[in-house]
Amino acid sequence: MTAPLRLAIAGLGTVGAGVVKLVQQHGGLLALRAGRGIEISAVSARSRGKDRGVDLNGYAWEDDPVALARRDDVDLVVEVMGGEDGPAKATVETALAGGKHVVTANKAMLALHGDEMARLAENAAVALRYEAAVAGGIPVIKALGEGRAGNAITRVMGVMNGTCNYILTEMEATGADYADVLRDAQRLGYAEADPTVDVGGIDAAHKLALLSALAFGTKVDFGAIKIEGIERISLSDIRYAAGMGYRIKLLGVARMNADGLEQRMQPCLVPASSPLGQLESVTNMVVIDGDHVAQTVHSGPGAGEGPTASAIMGDVMDVARGIVLPPFGIPVSRLAAAPKSTSGAEAAYYLRFMLQDQPGTLATIATALAKQGVSIDRMRQEEHEGDTAAVLIVTHACARAQLDLALAEIGGDAASLADPVAIRIETV
Amino acid sequence: MTAPLRLAIAGLGTVGAGVVKLVQQHGGLLALRAGRGIEISAVSARSRGKDRGVDLNGYAWEDDPVALARRDDVDLVVEVMGGEDGPAKATVETALAGGKHVVTANKAMLALHGDEMARLAENAAVALRYEAAVAGGIPVIKALGEGRAGNAITRVMGVMNGTCNYILTEMEATGADYADVLRDAQRLGYAEADPTVDVGGIDAAHKLALLSALAFGTKVDFGAIKIEGIERISLSDIRYAAGMGYRIKLLGVARMNADGLEQRMQPCLVPASSPLGQLESVTNMVVIDGDHVAQTVHSGPGAGEGPTASAIMGDVMDVARGIVLPPFGIPVSRLAAAPKSTSGAEAAYYLRFMLQDQPGTLATIATALAKQGVSIDRMRQEEHEGDTAAVLIVTHACARAQLDLALAEIGGDAASLADPVAIRIETV
Repeated sequence: MTAPLRLAIAGLGTVGAGVVKLVQQHGGLLALRAGRGIEISAVSARSRGKDRGVDLNGYAWEDDPVALARRDDVDLVVEVMGGEDGPAKATVETALAGGKHVVTANKAMLALHGDEMARLAENAAVALRYEAAVAGGIPVIKALGEGRAGNAITRVMGVMNGTCNYILTEMEATGADYADVLRDAQRLGYAEADPTVDVGGIDAAHKLALLSALAFGTKVDFGAIKIEGIERISLSDIRYAAGMGYRIKLLGVARMNADGLEQRMQPCLVPASSPLGQLESVTNMVVIDGDHVAQTVHSGPGAGEGPTASAIMGDVMDVARGIVLPPFGIPVSRLAAAPKSTSGAEAAYYLRFMLQDQPGTLATIATALAKQGVSIDRMRQEEHEGDTAAVLIVTHACARAQLDLALAEIGGDAASLADPVAIRIETV
Repeated sequence: MTAPLRLAIAGLGTVGAGVVKLVQQHGGLLALRAGRGIEISAVSARSRGKDRGVDLNGYAWEDDPVALARRDDVDLVVEVMGGEDGPAKATVETALAGGKHVVTANKAMLALHGDEMARLAENAAVALRYEAAVAGGIPVIKALGEGRAGNAITRVMGVMNGTCNYILTEMEATGADYADVLRDAQRLGYAEADPTVDVGGIDAAHKLALLSALAFGTKVDFGAIKIEGIERISLSDIRYAAGMGYRIKLLGVARMNADGLEQRMQPCLVPASSPLGQLESVTNMVVIDGDHVAQTVHSGPGAGEGPTASAIMGDVMDVARGIVLPPFGIPVSRLAAAPKSTSGAEAAYYLRFMLQDQPGTLATIATALAKQGVSIDRMRQEEHEGDTAAVLIVTHACARAQLDLALAEIGGDAASLADPVAIRIETV
């Protein structure tokens, strides 16, 4: 029997403690499945004395995670400290340079330094795996990089931030507005005290950057992602969209166009009857379109101790079984530098205008849209409040640039009482 | 660079031709991802002259698939002939015994001879992979055997026969009855001329047998699966169930109970709002419950040329990348012989009684159920047709044996105009 695989756990927050619990609970099962034992040699965290609900007595302790990554009795470092730079990056670099495998949940670090880290791993012929970094407990890195390896991927998209999906579905369910639901989410632990990284779409965009690289064989290019958060989504738009058969989701989409790679993380309308439209609460979902397989849909818990530990151990088990693949599916030297797509595939849009209820305003809108070649699929005028009428439009597919010209003209009209709202409708 | 992986394709029906097309179309991409070329050396099928829409000129031809499996210029045999015994089995056995990897879509063969085949593969230290055998294009064997390898699996279930799901969803959508929809499905190519293997639940049960073994580390035990098809599902039950918030699915469920392994393939009610309940047409879905990850849901096309070829090539790519795992996750010598669970976890049931509309009949039902300790969650009496009333009951969780005693008593009552219907309600 092969010698046991010896782990070091760098970081003992919720996830790190979850990994320790899993190894302690399932030692026999893991060994049976891996064909070798899975052992923890050493752990590291900021505060040694803290009670984490797990017995750490059998493991060596290191105050310094970089020292942990240098230990001779470690084959694989599980990095669950977080932080895009600093100790996490130093720890991973040290481990890889020293010929140790790394399994990490750190999406920010990989989104910003993924190519560099992958090169280190490949040079040392070790694994750098990150299933837990994307969509938590859903094995979507595996599905995309291995299960779908026979396909040219045409699009990958998903709802990958539980906080945002919780807020959007709660707003719809309770009729509370954004600020109130965010406060509740913070109280329940679904949102951080500073929620910017979540509600601003940054966390989900980190994940999208990794999926893009893996799907299209391109360099990790977080900076090229167009990012828009959910802060400005109003209860009215959620309700109007629902009335027209849609739901609003913070949706990440990566697609290879003729002129380059399109990467967007933004609120989108999706059909309420689609799998994405039916997604509730903190659950994540990733949708993969391949040329031969057509579409597969993967959903599950996007965060939390158990699901994240499960994803980490899936990676650890692969390493224990001897699987070492290039982190982004192909050698990092072959990852293409795809230009940022500026064509922007055409899309249909949901538009909302708040207008003074007077003759001629509808004509103003219709004329401005027509002038830019934007044609109207459906139109509704909703009940007035005082002198204000909400006019809702679903367009046919159009270019965003043309639409923006029309919206600027309409927004500048005296009858327009608020900036027009435009939300993309994604084809699912 | 590693030498190319040389394939032989045994069987050139829709799927076999699809694999050839995929290799021809994506040769460069596959080589980039695998780190080595993927080539076809030889092919075999019954009729050499037939036009299959692909150019086979570059490949050696064998009339006999067993001779194909013996060729020296082949590293891996793709078996897509089908049939649980006969040439398919002989071909796979020959390939494995000769130290060649095998990738197959043959669920019937593995459901009946899986352990024996796995032993041959392990003895020769080659791969025997079957992603395409279960739920077509969805990489669920990979998700369960690798992605979820850190979890104890608590339940695996799914809708894995597109024909059945098409028939059930079409009946609901169109109001046509079973026989008419089956005829349409046959015309559209969604059902075979002899549909027994599909509508009888046998095809789906083959798949469940493989998922069970992989999930629970048990010997493949197709014979222990309780199988019931959809032939007796009536439009009335579909509509009554819908009225109570449920949909009827042919659902396979495998769960490890205290007394052994529970394996069932049978029509079940699931909540209409659940992912399983929302599944339409020929799409497949597999739901995996693990102790740490909780639940992940995987859906996609369950059959067809492209999806099946995609699944096969996912397996081929893994082999090309050097991945050889025990076919059922752990060595075949360690697969447990789980007894067939006879306890049968308790469940709620949907019941339908067709009763003569006369005083006292409801009391008869209520009394008979109460006598067996079956308690009622919800009850409805639907509109009469002539002198007949349909009484619908949703029970609380109860043991099937007790329920059957009650049903026998009610069915024997003079007021009962048809055999009572009882369909399990699965917790999702």
